[in-house]
Amino acid sequence: MIKAGIVGGTGYTGVELLRLLVQHPEVELNVITSRSEAGRPVSGLYPNLRGHIDLTFSEPDPVQLAACDVVFFATPNGTAMQTTPVLLDAGVRVIDLAADFRIRDVHEWQQWYGMTHACPDLLEEAVYGLPEVNRELISNARLVANPGCYPTAVLLGFLPLLEAGLVNSDQLIADCKSGVSGAGRSASVGTLLCEASESFKAYGVPGHRHLPEIRQGLETASGMPVGLTFVPHLTPMIRGIHATLYSIQTGKQDDLQSLYEHRYADEPFVDVLPAGSHPETRSVKGSNMCRISVHKPQSRDTIVVLSVIDNLVKGAAGQAVHNMNLMFGMEESLGIDHVALMP
Amino acid sequence: MIKAGIVGGTGYTGVELLRLLVQHPEVELNVITSRSEAGRPVSGLYPNLRGHIDLTFSEPDPVQLAACDVVFFATPNGTAMQTTPVLLDAGVRVIDLAADFRIRDVHEWQQWYGMTHACPDLLEEAVYGLPEVNRELISNARLVANPGCYPTAVLLGFLPLLEAGLVNSDQLIADCKSGVSGAGRSASVGTLLCEASESFKAYGVPGHRHLPEIRQGLETASGMPVGLTFVPHLTPMIRGIHATLYSIQTGKQDDLQSLYEHRYADEPFVDVLPAGSHPETRSVKGSNMCRISVHKPQSRDTIVVLSVIDNLVKGAAGQAVHNMNLMFGMEESLGIDHVALMP
Amino acid sequence: MIKAGIVGGTGYTGVELLRLLVQHPEVELNVITSRSEAGRPVSGLYPNLRGHIDLTFSEPDPVQLAACDVVFFATPNGTAMQTTPVLLDAGVRVIDLAADFRIRDVHEWQQWYGMTHACPDLLEEAVYGLPEVNRELISNARLVANPGCYPTAVLLGFLPLLEAGLVNSDQLIADCKSGVSGAGRSASVGTLLCEASESFKAYGVPGHRHLPEIRQGLETASGMPVGLTFVPHLTPMIRGIHATLYSIQTGKQDDLQSLYEHRYADEPFVDVLPAGSHPETRSVKGSNMCRISVHKPQSRDTIVVLSVIDNLVKGAAGQAVHNMNLMFGMEESLGIDHVALMP
Amino acid sequence: MIKAGIVGGTGYTGVELLRLLVQHPEVELNVITSRSEAGRPVSGLYPNLRGHIDLTFSEPDPVQLAACDVVFFATPNGTAMQTTPVLLDAGVRVIDLAADFRIRDVHEWQQWYGMTHACPDLLEEAVYGLPEVNRELISNARLVANPGCYPTAVLLGFLPLLEAGLVNSDQLIADCKSGVSGAGRSASVGTLLCEASESFKAYGVPGHRHLPEIRQGLETASGMPVGLTFVPHLTPMIRGIHATLYSIQTGKQDDLQSLYEHRYADEPFVDVLPAGSHPETRSVKGSNMCRISVHKPQSRDTIVVLSVIDNLVKGAAGQAVHNMNLMFGMEESLGIDHVALMP
Repeated sequence: MIKAGIVGGTGYTGVELLRLLVQHPEVELNVITSRSEAGRPVSGLYPNLRGHIDLTFSEPDPVQLAACDVVFFATPNGTAMQTTPVLLDAGVRVIDLAADFRIRDVHEWQQWYGMTHACPDLLEEAVYGLPEVNRELISNARLVANPGCYPTAVLLGFLPLLEAGLVNSDQLIADCKSGVSGAGRSASVGTLLCEASESFKAYGVPGHRHLPEIRQGLETASGMPVGLTFVPHLTPMIRGIHATLYSIQTGKQDDLQSLYEHRYADEPFVDVLPAGSHPETRSVKGSNMCRISVHKPQSRDTIVVLSVIDNLVKGAAGQAVHNMNLMFGMEESLGIDHVALMP
Repeated sequence: MIKAGIVGGTGYTGVELLRLLVQHPEVELNVITSRSEAGRPVSGLYPNLRGHIDLTFSEPDPVQLAACDVVFFATPNGTAMQTTPVLLDAGVRVIDLAADFRIRDVHEWQQWYGMTHACPDLLEEAVYGLPEVNRELISNARLVANPGCYPTAVLLGFLPLLEAGLVNSDQLIADCKSGVSGAGRSASVGTLLCEASESFKAYGVPGHRHLPEIRQGLETASGMPVGLTFVPHLTPMIRGIHATLYSIQTGKQDDLQSLYEHRYADEPFVDVLPAGSHPETRSVKGSNMCRISVHKPQSRDTIVVLSVIDNLVKGAAGQAVHNMNLMFGMEESLGIDHVALMP
Repeated sequence: MIKAGIVGGTGYTGVELLRLLVQHPEVELNVITSRSEAGRPVSGLYPNLRGHIDLTFSEPDPVQLAACDVVFFATPNGTAMQTTPVLLDAGVRVIDLAADFRIRDVHEWQQWYGMTHACPDLLEEAVYGLPEVNRELISNARLVANPGCYPTAVLLGFLPLLEAGLVNSDQLIADCKSGVSGAGRSASVGTLLCEASESFKAYGVPGHRHLPEIRQGLETASGMPVGLTFVPHLTPMIRGIHATLYSIQTGKQDDLQSLYEHRYADEPFVDVLPAGSHPETRSVKGSNMCRISVHKPQSRDTIVVLSVIDNLVKGAAGQAVHNMNLMFGMEESLGIDHVALMP
Repeated sequence: MIKAGIVGGTGYTGVELLRLLVQHPEVELNVITSRSEAGRPVSGLYPNLRGHIDLTFSEPDPVQLAACDVVFFATPNGTAMQTTPVLLDAGVRVIDLAADFRIRDVHEWQQWYGMTHACPDLLEEAVYGLPEVNRELISNARLVANPGCYPTAVLLGFLPLLEAGLVNSDQLIADCKSGVSGAGRSASVGTLLCEASESFKAYGVPGHRHLPEIRQGLETASGMPVGLTFVPHLTPMIRGIHATLYSIQTGKQDDLQSLYEHRYADEPFVDVLPAGSHPETRSVKGSNMCRISVHKPQSRDTIVVLSVIDNLVKGAAGQAVHNMNLMFGMEESLGIDHVALMP
């Protein structure tokens, strides 16, 4: 059994991580920290966990955390980088679900996140935890930067085209729609039911923190600079991201369907739908699957890729457990092969 | 491995049964019938099952069904009773998720369901599949009538009071609220998103088919005739039933909280919340749990019980699997101890 | 033209009042105050009002308010009572949409609202602004206490029975369901979309502030003490209240339908539906109408009344404008006869 | 008073037209036809209209319709073209809310709509009813083709750029999101609450009937052929369309904000938001307004325009009334200047 700890288990990624880990056959949860809820039983805050967990939120304690095999950070940006060096020194593996270790260029990170990085020397070692790209590196990593939700959906959708050099990498568009849980569990007017339901809007059009992360991943795949327009939208539902991706085909390839099916043939968590399909976000609700379809409408040269994930699972907690499974040499899909809840 | 068949697997209880059975460690699905979808892969209709099931819907075939250890009927009322006698004769255990075997009085059944019963002689043998009441009988049953969703929520909420003879059994009120999935997957104007969302209404106030089923269960518990007013409402959400139960205390008992905790102490799927709690339906979304709290507001003699279930799980498919586990001597919670999806 | 002022125009009742008043043919809005938004154009906070209003939120200024013919308080409880005496002295009519003047018994008010009343001497003068009961008094009032949303729905539903002395007034039950806008526009975790959608729950079962207000209204109607059990629930939608009311018939009256139709025959904002109907909250969305139906299911002696309103209109801002119309001798329905938005 | 008739008043555009016309000060509704609901009071089907309308649905009767000043067709595609010639001959003005007269090229129309056009000779006379483009022509028209919902949102968003020749007209992308009411009120599985809520999906990517209509409007504006990729999506809400429009700037123009504000300065129903804004669909819910903002993110050459409407108002019934107002020389905004319902 792997001894796991969670730092910051009160947000939506935290409770989703709990849902997955308490049902994982090879994990024993040792500690869950939360400054604001210290002393409160976890199942008091999250009654869905009653009967599944006995733990109580506790103040973060480096000694307790150092006794774990793996520590997950489900904290706001800027928290994991404070404690990660100590944990790594103690031999603990670290998976950060926030953004602290996602951007390799520390200057770009500091510009977008508005703070000084506490351990820039770890950025090179940190592995970007997208198993479909970095499976081997993850297996040997001490420190994994778990990808953001938008980046996961966009990268998996664009990768086959960019790796094959088929599209104009200077004219990529990612029109993304997210459920409201992506905004987290903090009290704020904008995500009240009365503000966010029965409405649809774009946000962050001038610039969103996931832009440099997506761009970095796209550039790695294509081996050259990319030009990306990224427009996120808020959709009136709890879970789910739908990425609609536009690119202009420049290279010759008549069978995009085969390209995608071949690229993801061995991937347990990417499902290429039959030609002509339109994936629904509900087909992945509560599951770790990414479902993708590829279209070339009206025989024009614009390729349209549709990619859906559950932002809290494949876009956060599920992918983190996938990374843990890889890091500890377990079967990849252990504890994360739930069937999506439909309807 | 138990060989299972499903008759009528295209509705919401059918797909929920599929979700649970494909993840059940001791079940092998042999056949799923659907006249309307015969020949279509199950995962074509329900993409959440892609990668989890290879079966194709088939025409109902008695020979194929007779080769199963257990057959679930997830069909409209009046279907199961046509085939059940043959299957029982062939040694197959039958669990009917519809209403064909729920009412012991065939005249009352025929009045509420508007058809002639095809095998009234089986009504006495059929066991009402509420494990919290009939655990032993279910374990030895050939034929289980799986309870309706409203009856499950109402009976579990009222049972402790009626079994203890604490309330006026002639003045019981069950004000129930159901998510829209309770109305099934048939195309109908009333359950369109544009009709049923952003609205709330009562329906069936003059009379609803679950009324005689609930009354029968209450009378069994109390050992005397009961007077029940049952008002169902449609709530703008997919899953969940919330029963708000009113009764007038007549017997002496100061500690209702203990009464409830004691009654359900050994039940794996009934969770009595701490005094003063208000259960939310989302705390059981996708899970087989029923959560209950009991109140006596303003020190008046009216007792208010709050009881929530997921209508598709504890109110249908999950309870059916629970019954199967009992019938085959397996651990009760095998394959149905999922944590609710929250948020 | 009537010069109107609004104190506290940033919440949901405030913006709804704005929506109605900017379209009212006989009202000129002079001032809208908000400490938190002072200096911000109203249409900056509420873009639906762009092109309909030029005002800017301002700091509350007694002189400016005293220049109005009528001042509406759309403030938290305890605010209106601070300024109302000064305004009345200046000859301004006051309509308080909060609870400061709703309860005649100052001790009961102080107990439920947890503060000392600032002007208890005005409680006797204040008129409870339910036009269906107090039309004449409202017409001559200087100070109107606009009813709460739950009380409006419950009182209109129970009045005909209580006024006729037809039911056991000691066994009244009001099972009420409210949309989330009833909780206001403050940032709070419980009303986030991810917490309140796809879920249903009761709250405040041990005691809710609308209980004494409802009880007072019921006792006035029946002329005797009443015993009331009031259970509010949160429903996953923005607007609407559905009250399901239970009482036990004791008096003789076979034609409840006529009783209701007769009681409300001349009321412009109460619509008694045909016998056998089930009102939907969406049939009053955005309108000032209350729709009611009355049932006596299964020929038992329990009467079930269904009553729906839009909590922000008939339950708040619309009723306030109705009161203003009466106070200034205008046609009752002026500016509030909008057709409900359906779907 | 203008005598108006509605053919096919039972769908969502029909009831929305009713909502607007019963409140219009210069319109008298004479007849509403529906084959399926003939003989039923309109307010029986739509209780929100109780007290506002006395009409009963009737069988379509050419004589009755010919006695109207204007007839609206809120029918499925292919219906209006059957009766329109007769009505025009009788001197009746016709406004078709379906697609029969929207496409000038009859061959293209027949290809997309799969039927033979019944009166192709009227296609040249018919005026495309987008007031922001064809105000003068509409004022003198006998026959107006009311635009589709997607085309309205997309055209208003792209017009200023195309009219100014600022963008590459061969690389236009319209990523559109619609509420479910756009799919109409027919019973179908795909738009059930349990299928369409808590989910998001694209549809019709290979080709959607609004594509040729949008392209025709864009080509008229730009005076040259355009290349358009149009991807519609279904959003889990009732009302609203959000168009996110992408184009590549080729011409020189640094102040896009002024371009838009200038283009729509005199338009009563197009509202250009301040620079940096993100319009929400709820800001136009129930209103005839289109709100637009224009962005050029990251200083790249991709222009992003955000355009929102209520699909049932500006995208259907409201625009039809706007056209009627123009055709009869009334004030443009008469009866359609409602404030959006927010929240």
